[in-house]
Amino acid sequence: MKQMEFTNIHAYKADGFIRNWQEIIHTQAIPYQYAVMADQLPEPQSHTLQNFINAAKKIHGVHDENDFTGIVFHDSDAAKWAEAAAYTAATTGDPDIAAKLDAVIRLIADAQEPDGYLNTYFSLRRPDKKWTNLLEAHELYCAGHMIEAAVAHYEATGKRNFLDVMRKNADHIYKHFITERHEGWGGHPEIELALVKLYQATGDEKYLVLAKHFIDVRGTDTDFYSRENDRKGWKYWGMNPKDLTYSQAHAPVRQQKDAVGHAVRAAYLYAGMADIANLTDDSALFCACKNLWDSITKKRMYVTGGIGSTKDGEAFTGDYDLPNDTAYAESCAAAALIFFAARMAQGEIDGKYYDIAELAFYNAFLAGIQLDGKKFFYVNPLENIPGISGKISTHNHALSVRQDWFACACCPPNIARLLASFGKYAYGENEGTVFCNLYAAGKVQFGNGVQLQCTTGYPFDFNVQYSIQHGGKDIAVRIPAYSRHTTLKIDGKETEYTIKNGYIYIKKPISGTKIEIQLDNMPHKIYPHTKIFENSGNVAVSRGPIIYCFEGIDNAGDVLSLALKRSGTLTVGADTAPGGAPVLHAQAIRLQTGQSLYSFDPPKTAIDTATAIPYYTRANRGDTEMRVWLPEY
Amino acid sequence: MKQMEFTNIHAYKADGFIRNWQEIIHTQAIPYQYAVMADQLPEPQSHTLQNFINAAKKIHGVHDENDFTGIVFHDSDAAKWAEAAAYTAATTGDPDIAAKLDAVIRLIADAQEPDGYLNTYFSLRRPDKKWTNLLEAHELYCAGHMIEAAVAHYEATGKRNFLDVMRKNADHIYKHFITERHEGWGGHPEIELALVKLYQATGDEKYLVLAKHFIDVRGTDTDFYSRENDRKGWKYWGMNPKDLTYSQAHAPVRQQKDAVGHAVRAAYLYAGMADIANLTDDSALFCACKNLWDSITKKRMYVTGGIGSTKDGEAFTGDYDLPNDTAYAESCAAAALIFFAARMAQGEIDGKYYDIAELAFYNAFLAGIQLDGKKFFYVNPLENIPGISGKISTHNHALSVRQDWFACACCPPNIARLLASFGKYAYGENEGTVFCNLYAAGKVQFGNGVQLQCTTGYPFDFNVQYSIQHGGKDIAVRIPAYSRHTTLKIDGKETEYTIKNGYIYIKKPISGTKIEIQLDNMPHKIYPHTKIFENSGNVAVSRGPIIYCFEGIDNAGDVLSLALKRSGTLTVGADTAPGGAPVLHAQAIRLQTGQSLYSFDPPKTAIDTATAIPYYTRANRGDTEMRVWLPEY
Repeated sequence: MKQMEFTNIHAYKADGFIRNWQEIIHTQAIPYQYAVMADQLPEPQSHTLQNFINAAKKIHGVHDENDFTGIVFHDSDAAKWAEAAAYTAATTGDPDIAAKLDAVIRLIADAQEPDGYLNTYFSLRRPDKKWTNLLEAHELYCAGHMIEAAVAHYEATGKRNFLDVMRKNADHIYKHFITERHEGWGGHPEIELALVKLYQATGDEKYLVLAKHFIDVRGTDTDFYSRENDRKGWKYWGMNPKDLTYSQAHAPVRQQKDAVGHAVRAAYLYAGMADIANLTDDSALFCACKNLWDSITKKRMYVTGGIGSTKDGEAFTGDYDLPNDTAYAESCAAAALIFFAARMAQGEIDGKYYDIAELAFYNAFLAGIQLDGKKFFYVNPLENIPGISGKISTHNHALSVRQDWFACACCPPNIARLLASFGKYAYGENEGTVFCNLYAAGKVQFGNGVQLQCTTGYPFDFNVQYSIQHGGKDIAVRIPAYSRHTTLKIDGKETEYTIKNGYIYIKKPISGTKIEIQLDNMPHKIYPHTKIFENSGNVAVSRGPIIYCFEGIDNAGDVLSLALKRSGTLTVGADTAPGGAPVLHAQAIRLQTGQSLYSFDPPKTAIDTATAIPYYTRANRGDTEMRVWLPEY
Repeated sequence: MKQMEFTNIHAYKADGFIRNWQEIIHTQAIPYQYAVMADQLPEPQSHTLQNFINAAKKIHGVHDENDFTGIVFHDSDAAKWAEAAAYTAATTGDPDIAAKLDAVIRLIADAQEPDGYLNTYFSLRRPDKKWTNLLEAHELYCAGHMIEAAVAHYEATGKRNFLDVMRKNADHIYKHFITERHEGWGGHPEIELALVKLYQATGDEKYLVLAKHFIDVRGTDTDFYSRENDRKGWKYWGMNPKDLTYSQAHAPVRQQKDAVGHAVRAAYLYAGMADIANLTDDSALFCACKNLWDSITKKRMYVTGGIGSTKDGEAFTGDYDLPNDTAYAESCAAAALIFFAARMAQGEIDGKYYDIAELAFYNAFLAGIQLDGKKFFYVNPLENIPGISGKISTHNHALSVRQDWFACACCPPNIARLLASFGKYAYGENEGTVFCNLYAAGKVQFGNGVQLQCTTGYPFDFNVQYSIQHGGKDIAVRIPAYSRHTTLKIDGKETEYTIKNGYIYIKKPISGTKIEIQLDNMPHKIYPHTKIFENSGNVAVSRGPIIYCFEGIDNAGDVLSLALKRSGTLTVGADTAPGGAPVLHAQAIRLQTGQSLYSFDPPKTAIDTATAIPYYTRANRGDTEMRVWLPEY
């Protein structure tokens, strides 16, 4: 049973670190991404909106048009942008964003076919092949993102126009899969969690039925893709219909234990599974979600919260296989892990879920966007070697610097929509309690009546104050596992506390109460499990939720000859990293070897100081050596 | 100018370590490989000889046959086997091997077309497409291996039948490329060094002209593959004609500086280049060879002498990119590096060449064959992780245990032919000097009249005695760079010496002289250059030319939690590794981490002893964790 609801998008008015990022999304990323999609820049031009214009012309008989540009799921870029714009319009009230969003919604609505079908690739290119290639063609995936956008727009504005378009689309899908009983499920999960949102926004149970259907049917028939492949008579990429793990269709979802296949598909699916488990009290399904959660977080996750160890299928591989230089760790996969975590926390109040969400957010996820909001990483390796990373065949995915766009541009708008909706996850609630899941400065107006103001310089300052402006419910504050020394003051007085499943509970503080939490502000060394064979002998460095990295530019141009002194000190530096965060300094050893590749002579050693910056701020100063993990010496 | 000749195959009668391996080749590998090629076993069956039988039937009009089995260069397996058999027949006088060899030569001769053309793939499958696909189709490669076999057979037996077949074939190729001036060069170099052998065996200069032509023309026309691709009207794999580096055709060879592309192709080419440079006094070409040598040995070679860092094209990648778990380090590439080294040493007497040849031989090369002679590795990674190696997409090439055959079976007969002809490289000569390049027990009868007996338990005993049975020329003995403490005794008396370019020279010892060399027998730790980013903080262990590795089976099933104690001792153990070599013991630290993937708590440590076995004996006891490099603690 669901223990916690997300807050409404209007609930949280950000301040501090999150406001800064939401302003970048508002003033830079959203206008920039719109301009790319609308072909308003000399380059990049994605033609995303032109596809809708062309499809509308064809559907409305203006002329016989079949010009489609981009990848089969190109529409989803517009959907994710619209979702981000809806959140941003709600929190900022910016009329320019609202106007752009209205324009995009009109284009989308115009491209809907009379029966509710909506997908410009199929309308333009393959009108006779709808629903024939679930393995490859992303129709349900695109519909899912579009539904999420419509729900966000409805929630942000109260307007039903976009919601109605997507209800009609969802009804069309319901008819196809439920009424007409066509077999199959989407090759790329996403619609499951979207339909749950649509159900919650509309109260219409058939969307829950459809979401549950896609969860229940997945992987129950291991020949489905092959049958579909045999009869479809066309292909998009020519994916192998026997490769079932890639799309988590190798077994019924309740029987899945290991996180496998394409990492974004996986975590979107698991998020949808958790949604259905929470809404239908399906303990077997929630148990499967917990097993998959453990598989990820105990065996298959980078220290940055990144997931997906290989570019081969952008996928999970095996337990403890976490190569640093060839990591995939897609920005979208970090977002998807956060979505999964947030739904697990709804089903089971346990701080471990938001511990991981926080880790993924501040590291693998936030690394996906340049500090200026206009360039993006798709892949987030934990090591950058100039001349190798992004250059040789095994590392060609692991680009050294962020790009202004991608042919497959899933990540940029995904980053925008999650940053713009941060409050939904940062704060949660149920009838009797409000949950401070993530430390997020700003004002929060909960649905259950509580109103509070959070003041903090988190994630670089570890004092967090909650001023209760309207009380009467319990306040639960997550205490991260990283915080080994935490103090709680209520109205200035240090107070004993117990942590229950990762949260401190303050019983019904009255209006005017001041809650002050001082978290552990010490930098720490992180030691990997010995089974992580790529990290034997290595350590990483963190402070709070922030994983740090060592860039050449701060370390005499040479990180590869740097080792951290075993039991050496780790201190917060006076200098700032790009973006203004404090650097860390570590006592280090500089190793000097001779010219030959291999030598009997141990390296000469010299005492040095290594300087680390937050991982997410990496590559803001060009292509330079970068490591998260350094050997100890 | 050539400074050193290879010895004749009859010159060296092996004893000790080499005799043991030559007996395994003689009694196990050669009969086994013949049985596979002749389809005499239930499995594996390669149908290699059946292709010749079928081609002969078609050529001689017995019936219209087009049944070909295997890969386009399948013929070369028979060629390499025949070469190995010829050497073995020469050194053992075994009539059964000689009879099998005669039978194979008859099959080959019967499959030659009247104009001299010889290639069963084309005769059977593509008779109208000869010489139209140099990029992919390996015709010159197969011819090269067949020529090498014919020269070996001639050298071993004095019989000209096979040699005449291949002269006719070489004449056919000469006519095509020189007389008729058809453009192009072989996509897979090999024929260059083979034609040099044919020139030396026959004295016919046109084979030298043809070899030099293939060297000179390579990479001079970067559009050749594309033009060929446009006009050929068929494809084998559909290789990209614009990928010129893969086959070292991106620039004229004299301008090439970095070792690039497919590692076997590269080292075969470089060997041929060195041959031509040596024979034609082409200093610009030799200079290019030296640059390429330096590129390999100073920046792109594993500590085992393995080359080829990635399965993508079985290729070199970039400087210092030497991943352990995903290494390619093909057995054939190690052989090819030895061929290249041996030719460099012919052009410039410098011990550094045979230092590398020795390293590659005892490690990356010898690891390719099971101790029983019947199973083989194609790929020789420096780390084996059960469940990952050979199992997941990024590691599917890095098999954990040797195989009884391969669809592409280039390595097994390559290993056989090099082991069977070890003496050619171990000892060299010129008019005034004999060269002991590698420590190889046995009797040697040089062409210049010197006769000696070498007595040693090398590579596990480091006392090497040469008894001069017929003297009168200078004796040059390579002193490996690894030997930091070397003593020389002449007739029992310790003698001062100087090392000149890696060799000790003993001036004209008379018959009866005893030369005794005591090499450094200490185990050593090896430290990698700090730029080798996969090995930061790691050490390897060696003794003499042998690189050791740590297998789980000797180390409580867990190598990943083992670190070597910094400045800890390294001793020769009383136990023996598979094959009888002594193990090494290293003072070690056992690390114990908790259950979580990442922790603030440093691992608990316990004193331990790590046991290492020679790398080449790895995986003789099943799939077990294996590492060449361990962290230091």
